[in-house]
Amino acid sequence: MAKGFDTLPGFRDFYPESCAVRNAIFDTWRSVAQRYGFVEYDGPVLEPTGLYTRKSGAEIVNQLFCFTDKGEREVALRPELTPTLARLAAARQREYKKPLRWFSIGQFFRYEKQQKGRTREFYQFNCDILGETSPAADAELIALSIDVMRAFGFDETHFRIRLSDRRVWTDFAARAGVGEASVGDFLQIIDKLDRDKPEVSAEKLAALGIALEDVQAFIAAGDPQSESLGIVRADLAARGLERFVEIDLGIVRGLAYYTGAVFEVFDIGKGMRAVAGGGRYDKLVELIGGVDMAAAGFAMGDVVIGDLIRETPATAARLDAAVAAQSGLDLFIIVADETKRPEALRMVQELRDTGFRVASPIAPAKVGKQFQMAEEQRAHIAVVIGAEYPLVTLKNLPLRLETICRREDFDAELTRLLGGAVG
Amino acid sequence: MAKGFDTLPGFRDFYPESCAVRNAIFDTWRSVAQRYGFVEYDGPVLEPTGLYTRKSGAEIVNQLFCFTDKGEREVALRPELTPTLARLAAARQREYKKPLRWFSIGQFFRYEKQQKGRTREFYQFNCDILGETSPAADAELIALSIDVMRAFGFDETHFRIRLSDRRVWTDFAARAGVGEASVGDFLQIIDKLDRDKPEVSAEKLAALGIALEDVQAFIAAGDPQSESLGIVRADLAARGLERFVEIDLGIVRGLAYYTGAVFEVFDIGKGMRAVAGGGRYDKLVELIGGVDMAAAGFAMGDVVIGDLIRETPATAARLDAAVAAQSGLDLFIIVADETKRPEALRMVQELRDTGFRVASPIAPAKVGKQFQMAEEQRAHIAVVIGAEYPLVTLKNLPLRLETICRREDFDAELTRLLGGAVG
Repeated sequence: MAKGFDTLPGFRDFYPESCAVRNAIFDTWRSVAQRYGFVEYDGPVLEPTGLYTRKSGAEIVNQLFCFTDKGEREVALRPELTPTLARLAAARQREYKKPLRWFSIGQFFRYEKQQKGRTREFYQFNCDILGETSPAADAELIALSIDVMRAFGFDETHFRIRLSDRRVWTDFAARAGVGEASVGDFLQIIDKLDRDKPEVSAEKLAALGIALEDVQAFIAAGDPQSESLGIVRADLAARGLERFVEIDLGIVRGLAYYTGAVFEVFDIGKGMRAVAGGGRYDKLVELIGGVDMAAAGFAMGDVVIGDLIRETPATAARLDAAVAAQSGLDLFIIVADETKRPEALRMVQELRDTGFRVASPIAPAKVGKQFQMAEEQRAHIAVVIGAEYPLVTLKNLPLRLETICRREDFDAELTRLLGGAVG
Repeated sequence: MAKGFDTLPGFRDFYPESCAVRNAIFDTWRSVAQRYGFVEYDGPVLEPTGLYTRKSGAEIVNQLFCFTDKGEREVALRPELTPTLARLAAARQREYKKPLRWFSIGQFFRYEKQQKGRTREFYQFNCDILGETSPAADAELIALSIDVMRAFGFDETHFRIRLSDRRVWTDFAARAGVGEASVGDFLQIIDKLDRDKPEVSAEKLAALGIALEDVQAFIAAGDPQSESLGIVRADLAARGLERFVEIDLGIVRGLAYYTGAVFEVFDIGKGMRAVAGGGRYDKLVELIGGVDMAAAGFAMGDVVIGDLIRETPATAARLDAAVAAQSGLDLFIIVADETKRPEALRMVQELRDTGFRVASPIAPAKVGKQFQMAEEQRAHIAVVIGAEYPLVTLKNLPLRLETICRREDFDAELTRLLGGAVG
């Protein structure tokens, strides 16, 4: 391939097979969100850099694809959707009845070191409830995340919701005498406990006057005495979903703007990867749009869930079925005699007008070759238009059933061959 | 709103209403392409700048959103899809049976002066056939573009295909003694005849030794004596689509890489806007990927077609219906007694598991208020769970039909109330 034309590192080409997988994941996300009565929205892929630098936290800001545009504006490819949502909700807050129940499916960009499950672009499913302070909103979002996993075919042997509340840790910090300016640093240390070596965490905590052992004991005790988490758990129990949820105070979430309940969906295979995460961010809409509006939400990326689906036999089979349902032809029109091509084209057009998925060879080819094309494109019915026209041959390819009829009886014959089910 | 957080000029926020319109346009594009047996693919939104600078022509290159990334790579937000498609097709040409019949729906970016119908981001529907030299491929693409317009509700009173062939003009240039290096400039002048003042065009043509009058007379004669255009027209006539097509030698298309038949879909209202355009580009796959592969395709953006749909009563009504079908709830569960909320939550969960679209108020509210919420969200059925539980009330909201039943008879009663049609 010519130099300079390769796909950029961390970016994906979506050939038809991978595009169909992507779309099947989107379809599942969209259908579950709609079952929850959520409505779809989207924002720009390019935003002012300032939208992220002041609110999202250092990790995301260091990974921005940002530049100066031809109009001297500092702009960035969006690394996440929540700041955009806060802007949208604030800007038209009078026009919509609260609470908003909104979802979005879109592409995001982070300049990260490449590794398994990390690309530089990814799609993300975002679900948020705005304008509702009740922990019942957190429960509704957690239930939605659980039902998305179930819709992919995962069950309680595959995943758990790890639930916590940031206020448990801000209270802990207050009791330990951590100054307000250092609370963010403290949360970052807790967030990285799993990834950092104990010596590193201990040293960082010591600088704030906290012993690692105290933090570990607090997590091990596992009982946050949090009224709001109690409401969330009771709500999920009423729905019959309590088996998917466990309290885990080790969950803090990396983003700076969370203020209350936080949760992650993680697989309980050996990977122990977070496939989704979110929480309550009651101050962000005010910070960005100047409107006081409670909010909570979560996001799920396509890369980790896609890997997990493919690694799990039950979910992989379900995805394959969804992909197969997207493609395949209803009919393939075989032109056995080129002088009858106009009649074949007319039939192709009429069948497409009816709503059937139809293809026909663009260039002349031998009949055997055309039947092969029909099989390759998984056509249900092959129709042969040849010298004997207006007699036409219909062949149900999966069933190997063949029938011949006159052109004027074609529609009835087709309906019969399809068992009246298609069209 | 806080400074620095506004939507960038030329970029769109998709609030739920406009997102639903966007998605309805996508659904129409996708369903017609699938009727034609086309399969979906996509490429990266960010590409090496070199992919465009050498092939697409000056107009697009001047409008690139391009920058240097953190890895010192020259990158650009994609302004069009065709060079990416050429790269994809060349890279895996052995894996796919030719001809490829591929379509894509994605977002593109051009830093243009803002005006009606011109945003800095837009979505585009791309359809291409690769690996087929026959003009029948051009006809198949033109038929697809016609059927997309018809699927939106447009008919022959609304739009035409303007069909031409670049070879008619390269032959004209050769006869007029225009050197090979100047043919591109010549085509640009022809492409801009409609927009430039006659004096400007005349001066530019004179520099190439051509009289504007000769060009105008050639266009007015309107008969290109082109064998391939004859095949395209006969093919479309066999499909019954000839009424949508006219020869217009004034069509050249701006992009540098076209080599043969070119066409535009334009509205015949007062706007006379091009809503789609494309043509044959038999050399691009070789230029980009080093593989000799004939190709033809077209693209339709979402902005002009969206405006046109809204300005045309018949198509606007059809779009509204598609948008309405996307949203709306099947059921709204009203919690008339907060002590019964667990029973209500359980019912919500069961109904969603069945596939229904269901919502329920997250926070306690008066029953009248809850009925109002149900109406606002266009719920079909409201279900009241109150002190009389396990007796529940079902109300068909559009029909104002009410019925009361025991919880264990709920599913049967619901089926009856829905007329057995939903679920």
